[in-house]
Formats: sequence, C-alpha cells, structure tokens
Amino acid sequence: MIDLRSDTVTKPTAEMRKAAYEAEVGDDVYNEDPTVNKLEEKAAEMLGKEAALFVTSGTQGNQIAVLTHCRIGNEIIVEENSHIFNYEGAAISAFAGVQPRTIRGVRGAMNPADVEAAIQEDDIHAGETGLICIENTHNRAGGAVVSLENMEEIYKIASKNHIPVHLDGARLFNAAVALQRPVKDIAKYTDTVQFCLSKGLGAPVGSIIAGSEVFVKQARKWRKRLGGGMRQAGIIAAPGLVALQTMVERLAIDHKNARKLADGLMNINGIKVVNQVDTNIILVDVSERGLTSNQFAQLLKENGVLVSTFGPQLVRFTTHYDVSVESIEKTLQIIKDL
Amino acid sequence: MIDLRSDTVTKPTAEMRKAAYEAEVGDDVYNEDPTVNKLEEKAAEMLGKEAALFVTSGTQGNQIAVLTHCRIGNEIIVEENSHIFNYEGAAISAFAGVQPRTIRGVRGAMNPADVEAAIQEDDIHAGETGLICIENTHNRAGGAVVSLENMEEIYKIASKNHIPVHLDGARLFNAAVALQRPVKDIAKYTDTVQFCLSKGLGAPVGSIIAGSEVFVKQARKWRKRLGGGMRQAGIIAAPGLVALQTMVERLAIDHKNARKLADGLMNINGIKVVNQVDTNIILVDVSERGLTSNQFAQLLKENGVLVSTFGPQLVRFTTHYDVSVESIEKTLQIIKDL
Amino acid sequence: MIDLRSDTVTKPTAEMRKAAYEAEVGDDVYNEDPTVNKLEEKAAEMLGKEAALFVTSGTQGNQIAVLTHCRIGNEIIVEENSHIFNYEGAAISAFAGVQPRTIRGVRGAMNPADVEAAIQEDDIHAGETGLICIENTHNRAGGAVVSLENMEEIYKIASKNHIPVHLDGARLFNAAVALQRPVKDIAKYTDTVQFCLSKGLGAPVGSIIAGSEVFVKQARKWRKRLGGGMRQAGIIAAPGLVALQTMVERLAIDHKNARKLADGLMNINGIKVVNQVDTNIILVDVSERGLTSNQFAQLLKENGVLVSTFGPQLVRFTTHYDVSVESIEKTLQIIKDL
Amino acid sequence: MIDLRSDTVTKPTAEMRKAAYEAEVGDDVYNEDPTVNKLEEKAAEMLGKEAALFVTSGTQGNQIAVLTHCRIGNEIIVEENSHIFNYEGAAISAFAGVQPRTIRGVRGAMNPADVEAAIQEDDIHAGETGLICIENTHNRAGGAVVSLENMEEIYKIASKNHIPVHLDGARLFNAAVALQRPVKDIAKYTDTVQFCLSKGLGAPVGSIIAGSEVFVKQARKWRKRLGGGMRQAGIIAAPGLVALQTMVERLAIDHKNARKLADGLMNINGIKVVNQVDTNIILVDVSERGLTSNQFAQLLKENGVLVSTFGPQLVRFTTHYDVSVESIEKTLQIIKDL
Repeated sequence: MIDLRSDTVTKPTAEMRKAAYEAEVGDDVYNEDPTVNKLEEKAAEMLGKEAALFVTSGTQGNQIAVLTHCRIGNEIIVEENSHIFNYEGAAISAFAGVQPRTIRGVRGAMNPADVEAAIQEDDIHAGETGLICIENTHNRAGGAVVSLENMEEIYKIASKNHIPVHLDGARLFNAAVALQRPVKDIAKYTDTVQFCLSKGLGAPVGSIIAGSEVFVKQARKWRKRLGGGMRQAGIIAAPGLVALQTMVERLAIDHKNARKLADGLMNINGIKVVNQVDTNIILVDVSERGLTSNQFAQLLKENGVLVSTFGPQLVRFTTHYDVSVESIEKTLQIIKDL
Repeated sequence: MIDLRSDTVTKPTAEMRKAAYEAEVGDDVYNEDPTVNKLEEKAAEMLGKEAALFVTSGTQGNQIAVLTHCRIGNEIIVEENSHIFNYEGAAISAFAGVQPRTIRGVRGAMNPADVEAAIQEDDIHAGETGLICIENTHNRAGGAVVSLENMEEIYKIASKNHIPVHLDGARLFNAAVALQRPVKDIAKYTDTVQFCLSKGLGAPVGSIIAGSEVFVKQARKWRKRLGGGMRQAGIIAAPGLVALQTMVERLAIDHKNARKLADGLMNINGIKVVNQVDTNIILVDVSERGLTSNQFAQLLKENGVLVSTFGPQLVRFTTHYDVSVESIEKTLQIIKDL
Repeated sequence: MIDLRSDTVTKPTAEMRKAAYEAEVGDDVYNEDPTVNKLEEKAAEMLGKEAALFVTSGTQGNQIAVLTHCRIGNEIIVEENSHIFNYEGAAISAFAGVQPRTIRGVRGAMNPADVEAAIQEDDIHAGETGLICIENTHNRAGGAVVSLENMEEIYKIASKNHIPVHLDGARLFNAAVALQRPVKDIAKYTDTVQFCLSKGLGAPVGSIIAGSEVFVKQARKWRKRLGGGMRQAGIIAAPGLVALQTMVERLAIDHKNARKLADGLMNINGIKVVNQVDTNIILVDVSERGLTSNQFAQLLKENGVLVSTFGPQLVRFTTHYDVSVESIEKTLQIIKDL
Repeated sequence: MIDLRSDTVTKPTAEMRKAAYEAEVGDDVYNEDPTVNKLEEKAAEMLGKEAALFVTSGTQGNQIAVLTHCRIGNEIIVEENSHIFNYEGAAISAFAGVQPRTIRGVRGAMNPADVEAAIQEDDIHAGETGLICIENTHNRAGGAVVSLENMEEIYKIASKNHIPVHLDGARLFNAAVALQRPVKDIAKYTDTVQFCLSKGLGAPVGSIIAGSEVFVKQARKWRKRLGGGMRQAGIIAAPGLVALQTMVERLAIDHKNARKLADGLMNINGIKVVNQVDTNIILVDVSERGLTSNQFAQLLKENGVLVSTFGPQLVRFTTHYDVSVESIEKTLQIIKDL
C-alpha cells in the first residue's frame, strides 16, 4: 500500500527507535525528565521563544493556547477552513467557552483588513476578541504557505488591539523549508506557536507549544487539566529530538515529490489539481470523472493507494518520509490506468 | 426626539400599565403566579406548541433553547448575521459550550442545501450538529421574512437527521403579519420557538420560549440556573398578555410606516435603501454621502432623530408603536434638509 | 392558607403596585430607564459601593459575581450549606466552570482558619482559589446572622491572598436589622454583594448586585449573556425602590413574629426548634413525632398552613410581611391540635 | 537518592524499553496501531469490560469518564479527599461543567447511606446527579483498599437510581493484589474504570479507561478533544503491555516493603503512622517532632531520601519497583539517626 492519506502515518525511523530505547528519563510532572527538558529547550530556541512545552498532539497544543489566552465568552478569529475550527471537535467552545468568528481566507491567508474588521468593539452585545489564530502551512488550503508579509500585518493589527496571535504551525517546518527561512522568522509574528513532531518530521507522538515564560507556566497547568501531564515522557521526547535534528531539511524532498505528483496528475484526464502545491499536499477535484471523492478514494484503495477526502469533491494526497519517488511514479501509473 | 433606533424602546401602553397594577400574582418559582400561567398557556396555544415559558429576554430564550437541546462539543448551524451569533456575547459558546457553524443566507434565509452540507457526519474530528437555528424575521437582513417554504425544507432536512430546529422569532409576529398567517403556521416548522413581547408588541419586559412539555420542563430548570426564575412575575406577565391581545394586528401599521419611510428615503440623494423592507426595519447605506454610519447617526441625533448603526456603512431605522406617521414625515423632512 | 414556606411569596404592597403603574421607564439595555437608574444609585449608596446593577434574581446576582470574579478552573470557597452551592442547579460549575470547595460552618459562619487552609497554593494539581463567598443571613442555618467579626476576619485573609469576597446577602436586610446596623457596615467586608428585593422586602421581582465601577461594567455584560438585560424594567424597579424606602425597618416585626412562633413551638411535644432564630426563619426537627418532614408538611397543609422542608427531618417556617401575629397564633394552635 | 515520593517515578524496565524499540506501530487516530489495539483488548479483557481506550494519564481517563457520562449542570458524588476532586485542577468543573458533591469517607470508602442521601431529587434548584466516583485504592487515605462489599452496595444504589459509577483505579492493581482477587472482580461494581500503567506497574506513560462499546466510542472522541489522540502510540503502549504482563504480581513486594517500612517507622519516636498501610503508601504525622511536613521532607532530602507531603502535618512514603528492601532499611536508619 502506498499511503498518501496524511503525513501523520509516518513511522519512526531506526534512529528514533534507538533514541527511545536509550532515553534518559524522569518524572516529567515533576519537571525531572531530562530528555523532555532538552527537547523543550531546543524547541524554544529554534522558535525564538522564551519557553516551550511538550504536548501529546497538535490539538492539545492549540487547545492549551486558547485556554491560556482566553476567557469564556471571548471570540477568537480563525480562518474558515482552519484545523482549530474544523477538526478539533468544537473543543474551543466545549472547553474554553470561546466562539469562533471565521474569515474566509485566500490560500489559507486571512486578509488583514478582514481581521481588523472582525475585532469586536467594547459592546455589551459582543464577546471580546481574545485571540487571533493563523495556520501555516494551511492544511485545507492544500498545504499553502501563508506569507511572512501577511503574518506581520496581522500581528501588527493584533498588537495594536492588545490581542495575542497564536500560530497553529502543525506543519510549520514545511512552511519554513518552502520559505527557505528558519522557523523563528515565522514565529516572530506570533505570541505563541504550536508545531507537530509527528507529521512530516516523523516522530511517533507529540507536539510543541511555545511562548513566553509566563505563558508556558500557565500552559503547563492547562496541560495537566487536559490529562497531558505524562511521567517518563522522555521515551517519546527522544524521538522528537531526533526529528528536530535529522528530519527538517529532508522535508524539501517531500515537497519535490508533491510537485512531481501534482505535475503528473495535471496531465491525467478528469483530474484537476486545485491548489498551488507549495509544500507536501495536493488537492484534486475528481468530479469531472463522475465520481465522488469517496468513490475515487475507494477505487484507489482497491489499487493499492490510500488518499483522504475533503468534502464530496476533493481528494487529498500528502507526501512524506515513507513515500519514495518510486511510489509517486507508481501512484501516477495506477491513476492513469484507472 | 423621534426614536427609530429599535422597536425595543416602545413604552408600555396605558392598558398594559393598568394590567400590571391589577395583576393577580403568586410565586412563579412555585408555578403559582396565575397571570404568568395564563400568559404561558395563551402563548403555547397561539404557537401550536404543548407548553411555553415566560423568560426575561429573547437572549435568555435563545440561550435556554441551546442549553436544552445541546451538549458541550456540539455544533449549531446558524445564519452568519443572526442575532444568536452576533448579539448575545458569545454566550452559546460560553455557557452551552457549542460551536456555531455559520451559513451566509440570502435575505436572512439559509439555503437548505447549505444547511444539509453543514451537518456533521459521525467523525472523531467533528462536533456533532446539535441544533439548527432560524431567525424570522431576520434583524440584520433588515427585518426580512424567511419564507414558509424555506423553513419547511430546512425542517425536513433537520428531522431526517434527527436534529432539532429552533426559531429565534424575536420578531415572529412581524413575520406573521407580513405573511398574513397565524404564528402557528410558522412555528410548525420548528421544534422550539422564542418570541419577544417587548419589541413591536410593546410589552415592557419579557419573551416566550415554547416547545414540547418535556422541553419546557427542562427549559424551566435552565431558566433557574440563568437566574431567570422570578417571583411575582405576574406584574410583567400581565402587560405581556395585553400585548398578545391588543398589539399584534397593529404591527401592520409599523410595516406601512416603514414602507412610507423607505419610499421617502429612496428619493433622497446619497441615501441607498439596501433591504426589501418586508416589515418594520429599513437599512440604509450612507457611504455615498461621504459619512460613516456613526457620523450620519450623530447628525440625525442633533436634529432630533435617533437611529442605530450596523457596521461602518449601514444605518437602521425601525418603526414601532411610538412612531406615528407624522414622525415618519418629519424624519424624511429632516434628512432632506441635512 | 397561612403561607410560611418562604418570604419569597410576599405579594407587592399597594404602594408598590402604584409605583409600577406610574413608573417612568426607558430602555434599560441602553441605560435609559430612569427608575432602574435611580434604584441602582440608591442601592449602591446604601451598600457603600461605587455602583450597583438590577438583576432578575438572587441566583442571577450570585452567578454574575462568580462569572465576573473567576476564570474556569478556579475554585471558590463556600459554606457547605450555602444557597450558591445547594440551590442554584450547579450553575457555578455549569457556566463559570468553577469548582466549589466547601467548608462546614457553625451557624452559617465559616471558621476563618478553615477558609485560610482551603486557599490553594500555586500548584499544578490545584485550581486557583478565585473567590470566597459568604451568606448572611444564612438560609439553611436558619436565617443565622454571620457576625461582623467573622466577616472582617475572612475579608482580611482574602485581601492578604488577593482573593475577592462576595456576599450572598439575599436576606442582607434581615441581618442588618438583627444587628441594628446599616447594610453598609456589613457590605464593607466584601468586594461585591447581592441582595434580594423580593424576599422580606416584598418587591415582586429582582435583586441587586453591587461593587466597584469596573466590576459593575463587567457584570452588566454577564447579565446580558444570561438574558437578564431587560427593556422597560422600571416597571419592576419601581416596586423595588418602594421596598428599599418602606420595607426595611418593618423586618423587625417578622423577626419578632418568628421569635413568638419559635417560643410557641418549643412548648409543643415532639417538636424541636433546632436553630437560634436570629431573624425570620425557624427550623424544626419533627422526627420525634415519628413523621418525615414531608409528612409533617402535608399534615399542616391539610390544616391550612404551608411550610417547606430541608431534608428528611427538618421543616422550615419563614415569617414575612403577609404573615400577621394572628396567623402566628393560629399556626401554633393548629400544630398543638394535631 | 531513595525516591519514595510516588510510584509515578518508576523508570521503565529493560524489557519495556525493548518493547518500545521493537513495537509494531501505526496511526492510532485511524485505529491502526496494532500494539495500542492489543493493549486495549488485553486491558478490556482483564477488566471484564467490552472495550478499553489507551489515554495519556489517569487524569485524562477520569476527565473523559466525567465528560462522557455527564452534562453540564450535573453533580457528581465524590469522596472528599479523592484525586478527581483535589488533584485535577478543578477540571471536572472547568471542562465538563459539573459540580462535585463531596462525602467524607472512612479510609477512602464512602458510606453507601451517605451516597444515597447525596443523590439529588428532581428539583428545579438542584443539579442532577450524573455520576458517582469511587477511588480504589484511595491515595489520600493512604493507599486504603475500598472493600468489595462497599463497592457493591454503592453500585446497587447507583443502578437503582440510574446513575453510572466510575472507578478511579489509578492504583487498581494494588487493590487487586491486596484483595487477592483479579481486577475484574473489582471492576464489576462499576460502569467505567480507569487504571494507570505508569504508577506501580512501572510503564513510562499512560492509563486505560474501559467500559461498554458505546462508552468507549464516545470516550475516543472526548480523548481527541482533550488532545489525547496520538499517532504511533505503540511506542508507549508496548511498555504498557509489558507492565500488564510482568509487573502485576510483584506489587505484593511493594506492599511487603511498605509494611516493613511502616513497622520500622512506628518504632521511631515522634513519628506516627496514621494509616493502616493496606498497600504501598504510608502516611506519617510528624508534628510531634515539632516540624512541619515540608521541614521534615527537606531534612530527609538532605539525607538522601525523597518523600512527598499531604498538608502541613503529613508526609507520604510510597514504595515501588525502584525501591529495594535495602533502601527501606537505609531509610529507616536515616530517620532514626535524624
């Protein structure tokens, strides 16, 4: 099976397994796991933030950000197709009691003027705007990279209005590699940032949430409430460290493979690539084939290729560490042969 | 001052005051206020529902509906410009822990196909759709009447998916008068319905929330939690009863006055009436005058006319019981003279 | 029927009805109801607080205090038998997301040392203590008056720990009359205070919540979210003003009647008065009669006397404006004759 | 250092590390991690429940149980010193919106009659009782074993009242070993049960929550919302499996060591063992020494022994896999020498 459903399916490398095996550990609820501490320091440093916290998933990192920044009855400004609004089970409202105010972005990027207009005035009828959330790269926009200019402009508007900015950077390193910039150049237009160790970077489990010392202290408590306080977490932090050390630069290969796959797909009848393919995600409209996305995905599955669907028309292909150039070529052949 | 800000500013009629003065009362927390009971029965009967509950405001009625129908982590489908999403302080998320999924309507009406598409499937990433909310007449769409056909279609989709429909009918009687139908003909495409006694109907305080017996029993407890359990509430229920008995048919006058005002405004340079004026609300774009809505409203105020604003360009005029034909004519003259 | 269930059953006086009839009103959501404004000013002044807000019930006032003072995940320290913990439908947890930490008081008064010990340290496992709540007079402790010394001591501990103190003074005026002190002498050991106009003071509907200007501004928004924003609320604020002007001093009569009733009950076989009867509440243990409290209450009802029950053994008698000395005597006779 | 602070500090065994290294993994969010699936099946079978779910901590397991069983505004009945009430950051109120109603137990066991009395009737003033939670062994009661008779009686009361019972069995296997019964004999008096792999059982990370198929399906979604959905979680599930296979029976050694330590401590002046030492926890009152618990713990630390504190007077010693008989003897010697 060629698994193009998501970069979450990547399996740990041999080096990661070895790191888990040998990890020096302690009780992280007491802040005594040296491997977790090392990972958090390394991540904070890469992001240019004061401190960082190891969490079990990107969803947990995002929820912690919302819980720490906001009070119930706040609004948060999010892009209409963002992960935090669409794929976290309505948890921002369920737990943090905040109401999302969505903005339709262009290739994942919210127009700064729209963001400014969405900020609530001091009015008895309106929830106070408590947070602005950016997603970069943007998953449902097909792994689109949000530009630094866009982020900077939104950050200025936010700062002027004393509203924090959180970056859902589940695939932050894909953005950094595409922009050929260190992640801290992106993170600097945010107050807090979350990124995943377990997607393109290939670690088995975990994400990072980073910000100021004060933020991370509070975040640590929210993590505990969410049940994310782990004991000898070094076992999974160790592969995370390996991921940061060995897996970042090779994301360029995933992007190249995605480009190759997209170019191939464009030449196949009835297949329409609908995104710009900035990074490792390709969105394909299959409706001209007279198939729903689910039918198309099923057909591919029967032929040895796994993809995921976005709504009734779109199919998503995601390249990652466990997908070789040969698999890309084979996938193209299979689709041509259908 | 001619007050066209809202139909909420109507003052109680002499008959209402007399009814308050003479009201037979008891402790409504013990269900012993005969006037409240009479009002609730009358309202339920008019709506064609099993039972009704007197609450202190439309917001409270809407919140109770959401709290009763939903669980935290649910989504509710609402129109993008709806009151429940825009003017209730994000309370649906703050208290009921639900996440709004907004649909852009046309003249306040959501496209049934959009509603159907917004219903979440059984998916670990998605909040369960717990409620669909319709607003009729729709305030920010300029008092637009949502058609019975639209409501029926949405109600069918909802029922097929086992999702309740709640009607924010703050101005339900305006819709009924415009449609020349009894309110129960509208309410029948809903599971629960809220309407206000204190807007066009002129009562000083209060709204009604209605539905099945089971719903109202639970709603009563949520009302208590929200602090809406009152004691000798007959004092305000009595004017509410007068409102239902004497103020419904005269809404046609408000609609006629609104039509007259709209027609006049259309003939004034730089003033653009942007809604269809189905009922008692007129939305006017003043940007061609080179003024913001706030500046225009201020100018009117200095000349003896109060209006409200919707965003930076729109001004809202609302007709009601305390606005006579003469006031309409005077208002037109004042704006012409500006 | 002699109704001794609660002082909430009092019906508005003729003067109150007249005040409602003649009330000058406006739209209170716009802060334009002159009668509401007058009531809020009068109440703030009596309490020695910067500002006050008219709300629909004591429960609503208490909930607003918790919502304004606390964040989700906070703890609040409350007396084990307090109203806010026992009779508000778990709303402090449902809406404000706070966890009560209960202390068993003596005659309604929490031991200050217990309060101090219950304050949470900065610990990742513990919710932050966000509020201390005192109830005076204390309903389930039989209308017991909490002493000023006790309140002062708790207030000092709270201030030292930067924790606000809220007073559930649903029956604050009963405490003041019993202590022969103005209510501001009690309110000064609190940050915020709630009292009811609709219990012993006899107004049909409503309570007051008071505190600093900043607090009341925020409280106003929480009231809106809870659906407590009313329109021409002067209709019920007017009787509230009459209550403050005419009904305070006469509470001494209720206390005298309660004393008389208690003394009489003490002389009846199998009836045990279990509280000290500081104010207008008498708690009676009827278990020696071989009856549950419900059975005893039913028996009394059949003989023309209504009382309420606290658990399986206790019956509560509450004196109020609508209970005359003659009714007290008749009640005693009825119980003797049983 | 001899670390007696908690059994959470245990480090993974060589076999566990090897299992992590070799674990067959997949994406557990897609239910495709074979090791996680195996662990969940094994755990469900041991507990005699239909299904089980791997979660990142005991706190997460408990929170999921409350979120799944309850609605906001519910009450849950918990023991006054329980973990869920005292050590989870008020999360049950923060997230699930439920209010704890605490019962003072005897050696961790709630009196069934107290539980029955704490169940709320159908009353507009009261939150509905949504869950009863038992803790076995009970941490703050000194690792006390709650008897099967007690659990059965509470379970009967709960079932009669249609209220689910959740067992916080963070140290369930300690209870089972002490009772010389399989865990399913304990779990049968519950609807859902949580136990930790990372305490006495020595796994690095994780807990199990188990119940009916329907419960676990819903629990899986709450886990996702809490951010507990992990990817290649087999890396930590594998040590968890080893823990279940190899570490259960040896808990008897921890209990024996605790007994030995307790017996020794009883013979030391000014040291008072205050619990019965059913399992692996010893509570010691050090106030006769004229020291606070913190001072005593500090003194021990300076001499190479780590303990934790419960309040100002109590010190907790916990035996576990990484504490040998020699360490116990050395600890006793150190305390004698102080």
